[in-house]
Amino acid sequence: MISRVEGAGRALIVGTGLIGGSVGLALRARGWRVSGLDFEGSRAQAALEMGALDAVGDDPAADLAVVATPVSAIAGTARRLLSDPNRAGLVVTDVGGVKVPVVGEADHPRFVGGHPMAGSEQIGLAGADPELFVGATWVLTPTVETDVDSFATVRAVVSSLGAEVVALTPEDHDRLVATMSHVPHLVAATLMNSAASHAEREGALLRLAAGGFRDMTRVAAGHPAIWPDICADNAAAIVASFDRLLADLGAVRDLVANTDRAGLLGMLERASAGRRALPARGTRPEQLAELRIPVPDRQGVLAEFTTLAGDMGVNIYDIEIAHSVEGSRGVLVMLVEGAAARALHEEIVARGHGCTVRELE
Amino acid sequence: MISRVEGAGRALIVGTGLIGGSVGLALRARGWRVSGLDFEGSRAQAALEMGALDAVGDDPAADLAVVATPVSAIAGTARRLLSDPNRAGLVVTDVGGVKVPVVGEADHPRFVGGHPMAGSEQIGLAGADPELFVGATWVLTPTVETDVDSFATVRAVVSSLGAEVVALTPEDHDRLVATMSHVPHLVAATLMNSAASHAEREGALLRLAAGGFRDMTRVAAGHPAIWPDICADNAAAIVASFDRLLADLGAVRDLVANTDRAGLLGMLERASAGRRALPARGTRPEQLAELRIPVPDRQGVLAEFTTLAGDMGVNIYDIEIAHSVEGSRGVLVMLVEGAAARALHEEIVARGHGCTVRELE
Repeated sequence: MISRVEGAGRALIVGTGLIGGSVGLALRARGWRVSGLDFEGSRAQAALEMGALDAVGDDPAADLAVVATPVSAIAGTARRLLSDPNRAGLVVTDVGGVKVPVVGEADHPRFVGGHPMAGSEQIGLAGADPELFVGATWVLTPTVETDVDSFATVRAVVSSLGAEVVALTPEDHDRLVATMSHVPHLVAATLMNSAASHAEREGALLRLAAGGFRDMTRVAAGHPAIWPDICADNAAAIVASFDRLLADLGAVRDLVANTDRAGLLGMLERASAGRRALPARGTRPEQLAELRIPVPDRQGVLAEFTTLAGDMGVNIYDIEIAHSVEGSRGVLVMLVEGAAARALHEEIVARGHGCTVRELE
Repeated sequence: MISRVEGAGRALIVGTGLIGGSVGLALRARGWRVSGLDFEGSRAQAALEMGALDAVGDDPAADLAVVATPVSAIAGTARRLLSDPNRAGLVVTDVGGVKVPVVGEADHPRFVGGHPMAGSEQIGLAGADPELFVGATWVLTPTVETDVDSFATVRAVVSSLGAEVVALTPEDHDRLVATMSHVPHLVAATLMNSAASHAEREGALLRLAAGGFRDMTRVAAGHPAIWPDICADNAAAIVASFDRLLADLGAVRDLVANTDRAGLLGMLERASAGRRALPARGTRPEQLAELRIPVPDRQGVLAEFTTLAGDMGVNIYDIEIAHSVEGSRGVLVMLVEGAAARALHEEIVARGHGCTVRELE
């Protein structure tokens, strides 16, 4: 297991809602000095009062800025911070639920896109919790631009909060959340509305709503206001995922229309096996393998390997660059599923890199 | 509230699985003598051993037969029992999840279609429970053929088991279960398969599966084997409901593609309000009204009023015919939602019937 002890520093949190407040609580518990700003001044004040901040206001000496504003404000905030000549060492990360537009617009080596998969069901500072990220998946999205030291800093901080880091390209992230979160939410809402509007006898309908229908529409009850922005920010990936789902639903509809019992049974058995295999939140695969690759210590090296792993369908559970004392080279250390390690190792060697593999417990 | 005290009699249960066994346990607890048969003899024996039956085998003297076989076997079993000249007084009901084909093929005045909305998640006699129906909705589907005394018998028995009776036409029942149960189940399975097959990086996908996706796909984990029959038996209603849902999903997909924030927000707010309004299992509307209508005591009179209520979108929460001492006439007593009672009353009077309305507490 990779571990990295990072000294506590000074953090600036921009946007002190549920996630920003939780990051503040968690960082302060680990010795950081945390300043915070919010578009609504009263919310930053509330964060201070609940202990999520040491001070309300900017901190020009911050080592790390965590931008936890709505998605539409992230890139502008990050650019403003990163273009300030008085903050030459500042590393900026964000917690937005969509990554391609944010990472593309922020467009800076010291910006590391992030998305903690936690807390989405609640809104507001009142739900802030220093343990919110323990065991949660926290996606980081390095690109060819990303500075390896900046990535290492963010990775270490995120890990120190108890989260499990998964490294994905921004494009993979947005496609996966469209498929696993955004489209299912829209389907739940549509299912609810479709049932309500097409059943002429709504009362009878409601009484006939069994457990399955309740489960499937539960998410539709929550927080409509956050979704138009999410849909706008991730429109391309959502539409693509929606179109695939619509094609699949049309095929299932045809199985019913054609009384294709074998086809239906096969479809349902696949789904049953797939659903039973869904791991609990934060579960790691049983076996992980560590790949160590001597690499030039420069921008782009992280993205080279995250892209390769993505193309091969291999998940990266953690990634960092261990610097060599010589300075110009380092060792890229990647944790991947044990079963996939050999194929990835072969491909890396075929590309002319040295690479060692070690199976972890 | 309508109540009717019915003396315990002799029951024959055909098909001693989860529902048949639960009916047996519940009837025996209320003093009935219960015999039972099953296609698998060992299962009837097991039902006897668990106390769900007094005896394994036929009971030519039974007053009531409950057919709890798979849907495809119900109508044939019912016809065989009802055509036996030695069972002239036998009333037959069933518990099948699809009603149009069953009721159409059974086609007898002493057959009363039924569907308890309970127990569908479990399979097998081992899950049998005499309390399974307490507070559950039990749909009965009288037609113009249905004998009023036979209906009254089944209604009284079902009520005595603790279930809440809802009277629907077979067509309304099948349309509602397609919309509220069958199509949602198929959507859950498709969502699971679609996500799994279209995400190239399945492990990352699984780790990104948040609570909403888990909720929406939970039903897909269960019992694939029962669904091909359900889909075949209710194909027409499922395809119709599926087509409406696909059209609605296509419209939502277009809202995303067109970045129609107002349209998305409206859609999501409707869904949120609808979902929050879903009552808990077995909840009755706050106010019920009792309509009493003097009617000729003959076949068809029940269906006349269930069809009228269905056309007007009014739910019938209970219905029976109270016989007059004169013999040839009775009083049809219907429980409906208080808010809808006045309109229904007016329509009944307009059709030349006498009708009184009384609001219940």
